[in-house]
Amino acid sequence: MKITCTKRELMDAVNIVSKAVAVKPPTPILSGILLSSEGSSLKIEANNLELGIRTKIPANTEIPGSIVVSGKYLQDMSRKLSGDIVSIVYDDEAKVVTLQSDSIAFKLLAFNVEDWVHIKELEPEVSFNLPAVTFKNLIRKTVYACAHDDSRPMFTGCLLQIDGNDITMVGTNTHRIAIMRETIPDSLESMKYIIPSKALGELARLADDSGDNSVTIRCSSKDIDFTFDNIYIKTRLLSGDFPPFEKVIPREATIIARVDTAELLAAIDRVGLISKETDYKTIKFTLGDNRLTLSSTSPEIGNAEESIIAAVEGGEIDISFNVNYLIEALKVIDTKVCVIKLSGRLKPADIREADRDEFIYIVTPIRTN
Amino acid sequence: MKITCTKRELMDAVNIVSKAVAVKPPTPILSGILLSSEGSSLKIEANNLELGIRTKIPANTEIPGSIVVSGKYLQDMSRKLSGDIVSIVYDDEAKVVTLQSDSIAFKLLAFNVEDWVHIKELEPEVSFNLPAVTFKNLIRKTVYACAHDDSRPMFTGCLLQIDGNDITMVGTNTHRIAIMRETIPDSLESMKYIIPSKALGELARLADDSGDNSVTIRCSSKDIDFTFDNIYIKTRLLSGDFPPFEKVIPREATIIARVDTAELLAAIDRVGLISKETDYKTIKFTLGDNRLTLSSTSPEIGNAEESIIAAVEGGEIDISFNVNYLIEALKVIDTKVCVIKLSGRLKPADIREADRDEFIYIVTPIRTN
Repeated sequence: MKITCTKRELMDAVNIVSKAVAVKPPTPILSGILLSSEGSSLKIEANNLELGIRTKIPANTEIPGSIVVSGKYLQDMSRKLSGDIVSIVYDDEAKVVTLQSDSIAFKLLAFNVEDWVHIKELEPEVSFNLPAVTFKNLIRKTVYACAHDDSRPMFTGCLLQIDGNDITMVGTNTHRIAIMRETIPDSLESMKYIIPSKALGELARLADDSGDNSVTIRCSSKDIDFTFDNIYIKTRLLSGDFPPFEKVIPREATIIARVDTAELLAAIDRVGLISKETDYKTIKFTLGDNRLTLSSTSPEIGNAEESIIAAVEGGEIDISFNVNYLIEALKVIDTKVCVIKLSGRLKPADIREADRDEFIYIVTPIRTN
Repeated sequence: MKITCTKRELMDAVNIVSKAVAVKPPTPILSGILLSSEGSSLKIEANNLELGIRTKIPANTEIPGSIVVSGKYLQDMSRKLSGDIVSIVYDDEAKVVTLQSDSIAFKLLAFNVEDWVHIKELEPEVSFNLPAVTFKNLIRKTVYACAHDDSRPMFTGCLLQIDGNDITMVGTNTHRIAIMRETIPDSLESMKYIIPSKALGELARLADDSGDNSVTIRCSSKDIDFTFDNIYIKTRLLSGDFPPFEKVIPREATIIARVDTAELLAAIDRVGLISKETDYKTIKFTLGDNRLTLSSTSPEIGNAEESIIAAVEGGEIDISFNVNYLIEALKVIDTKVCVIKLSGRLKPADIREADRDEFIYIVTPIRTN
């Protein structure tokens, strides 16, 4: 292989695929990145078997070919190259790749390209397009709510449910659930998939949601892939029967509070200082008399208390939550005012954007004395 | 105690003393910060027995008093207070300090103020002033070269040596030594002290070197203290016979190279990518024919090579160094061009600023095959 490309495009492309480079790989080849010349393009691919990412950049190809080199070092080197143009030359006999730019030459030992695990072509049962802005919004509003531990793998991903013109994404760790609904212009048949949160995080990072950009999504029974701009991402689907999320949405509320979102978030951030290092990270809400009083206590440190204005209907209550679960939800609320609906101090709370029902966040309170 | 002060001044003062708060204290009181009202000031003090820092801020005192609270939480809280003015009130019976600002009230359990270990007044044998700009420069040019491990505690500090109008600071970890000389307007008697690098780091961070600011330094046989602006810092001196650093400066050089400092630093940063995770972090310099060629090799990764222009006198040589030792020294070289003097591939190298001899950096090469 002998090609040239720009430093900037190489660096950006390597950064794009780098999240699919295995960090502690079962076999060394999974820590590599594939560079493969295809006509006037250079294909760049990483695949850790869970997640595969591929992109391409323009390249001048003198001798075509394919190589695999260390993902970590390719990323570091492409960032540090001093010039604008990079030449990439593979010495077949020495099995060494030379990256040269200006006066610097990096020689990297190549992996055996025959060992590369190509991203297998998906055999689609379903294929559809979503506006990038819709898709990124679905992810942003829900993905943080997924479980981080693998005890029930299904909950480490988000449910994507499509039904006609309705598209819903749901993330939960069983203690709280984030639900986001959007409508799409074209009606689609009903389908349900559980997509790993890691892949969704990459999609949110990489998809450009400006203008009319869209993401093409294709699914088989086991995998899902996403195509947008010059990027292709494929990931395994998670299996499992996602619990019927509609059932956890409380039917009615006895107490409804309307609060300034930014003010509430700032107050929780302050008062939560006391509880953030305690076991249950408990923050207490005391609602009533047009005030929301937030408090937290630690026997070793002390306590904090702050009151903010709240429009409260339905009476008084005190109820405790995990401070992080509140902060994460409030951070994705886009309206100036948020609505907190309660129906008892041990019943799940329902948090929404004011005058909108697209986003619903249900959080189980903490039982306190 | 009942006082008010500004949030900004409290936060800044707590940040100043925070580096003297013990992180893993042998007794809990050392993790605290003392707040003590003195007339129209609030004194703020931390003392981990190695290092003590004290400062003061203006305060309106209604009821004078002294309290000790958790340094960590005081720092977090003073940063998060929402208003401009803070009231600090101590409830003697509950042993609770209330920090109130706007609508937020933090109540912190207080330590027993009787347990506080006050920074002991030093009994000075010597006292002198140094321009802050001179003192900070001495620190900046040498402190990074100190040892980080405690196997020979003396080398975890810098030697401060004064002789008439000459003031010299020296840092070494025995593999490299950084020497910085300055002249001072007033002649002083001869003296030598070894100051812990941690205290020097804080002095460099805190001393304002603008204008004619100066630092007052006082020493006893065991301790040294520094007074500037509103800040007082006291630290233990390190004991030991600092080796005669003049003797390690090579008398003559057979090969002298002059190189653009920024260009050399950038090239070392690039080529060093290969060696930075290897055991000896070796980078090879090959000098001759008006070129300096830098190279590094790792059997597992590959190698890197870059050439830059160098004005070389005296012949050709190749010599290897620890890449970090070079980077750290080049970062404090303030001249466009630096001078590298060599007298053999196993003899210490001497690196200086062009046409200046105030700063001398001697580094032992790595023996390679």
